Amino acid sequence: MKRYPPKLKPYLKKLEYSYSFGIYPTLDLLKYKEDRVLKVLLSEAIKGEKGEQEIIELCEKHEIPFEYNDRAIQKIAYKENTYAIGIFQKYMPILDDEVSHVVLVEPRNMGNIGTIVRTMLAFGISNLALIQPAADIFDPKVVRSAMGALFQINFEYYTSFEEYANKFPEHSKYPFMLEGGRDIRQIAVDEKYSLIFGNEAKGLPVSFSEIGQPVYIRQSSKVDSLNLSIAAGVAMWYFASVTGKIR
Amino acid sequence: MKRYPPKLKPYLKKLEYSYSFGIYPTLDLLKYKEDRVLKVLLSEAIKGEKGEQEIIELCEKHEIPFEYNDRAIQKIAYKENTYAIGIFQKYMPILDDEVSHVVLVEPRNMGNIGTIVRTMLAFGISNLALIQPAADIFDPKVVRSAMGALFQINFEYYTSFEEYANKFPEHSKYPFMLEGGRDIRQIAVDEKYSLIFGNEAKGLPVSFSEIGQPVYIRQSSKVDSLNLSIAAGVAMWYFASVTGKIR
Repeated sequence: MKRYPPKLKPYLKKLEYSYSFGIYPTLDLLKYKEDRVLKVLLSEAIKGEKGEQEIIELCEKHEIPFEYNDRAIQKIAYKENTYAIGIFQKYMPILDDEVSHVVLVEPRNMGNIGTIVRTMLAFGISNLALIQPAADIFDPKVVRSAMGALFQINFEYYTSFEEYANKFPEHSKYPFMLEGGRDIRQIAVDEKYSLIFGNEAKGLPVSFSEIGQPVYIRQSSKVDSLNLSIAAGVAMWYFASVTGKIR
Repeated sequence: MKRYPPKLKPYLKKLEYSYSFGIYPTLDLLKYKEDRVLKVLLSEAIKGEKGEQEIIELCEKHEIPFEYNDRAIQKIAYKENTYAIGIFQKYMPILDDEVSHVVLVEPRNMGNIGTIVRTMLAFGISNLALIQPAADIFDPKVVRSAMGALFQINFEYYTSFEEYANKFPEHSKYPFMLEGGRDIRQIAVDEKYSLIFGNEAKGLPVSFSEIGQPVYIRQSSKVDSLNLSIAAGVAMWYFASVTGKIR
């Protein structure tokens, strides 16, 4: 791949590249997606900080251009004190049919998606389906809240849930629903599963109760619902625990 | 209590009052802390929207002044399209010694605190200790991410963990730690407990392993740690589940 330095501008969804902001996300980018990195920008402020040498060594090893350029960083960073930025070409992974998935139906909140990606990796799930309309997973806000985990998972967009379900007929489907679901502690957990979560505001449409075993995480009536990333976190932990994926 | 209309300004920690932004947080404020509400501001845009009548009825019932005032809303709101703002006097609840607690040691992220408060309520824990230095729980960012749950729990600040522990000697202490903890699925869970979580960046100091039964939530080595609110969510769900608090 040609490693050209793109004309730098603040992130837009339509761009063919995106950014990792910060030392650790940039290190993860260099470790897991080095073939996609176009360039690394460093701030003068990183000099002597932990991580500087490791970034430079990885750049040199993979022949990735890097430069100290605070002006360029200020142009594209969201926050003050961004010590490092990785500029990387977007890529299109595909989901692995052999393993379990998380499916987010119309997720909109970038922080939630990033947190879920990080939690997936923690609990041994590395494939994420996003049903459109959905937020842009390459947005630097997702990259940042995933804390580098984004570069270690597969993800794929689908125009509808049906498209996803037709492609992966063998996955046991578990839609998480506030109504009509069975207590998570009482369901049969299959080895290869899809954990399906609805949009932050609306949850899943009622019709999802027919696509598999609907599941409910018991909660007090004092709250309307759990935060999406919390519900996904509890569900992933429970499934990983029951199937012995976390030991 | 005198219900005076304070001179309006964007939120600052030193103010004696704070704000609920949005229709639903304001409804929860009016339902659970009506005696603390100084005034309610409505946007012209709320007219005919769901929630408008309920807000007005609650204000009238409790003799709380309200007015349509977009200029005032623009002065203090963080976001466009804020349809309602409740202005409320800060209050100082105290923790209930008879029930279980969550303890956050030096939490800094307001979104995390709000999400944890909402999750606490969902899983039946309604008392939160905050060990200083800690973020301001009355900040509208916490109020917003707690989605009204803040008005249904007790919380209290302590200058040190020792101060908290001395006040509640009978609570079984469970510090959540990345190192030296026992798998959450293998610990004995007492009826009255304190679930203790460290700061987002640092976790708990090693010394906490001596104050009770240290606990670990198993996770892949591919991530450094779980997000604080996810760790707290899994822990609260598990404890509530084992002690039969969620049925």
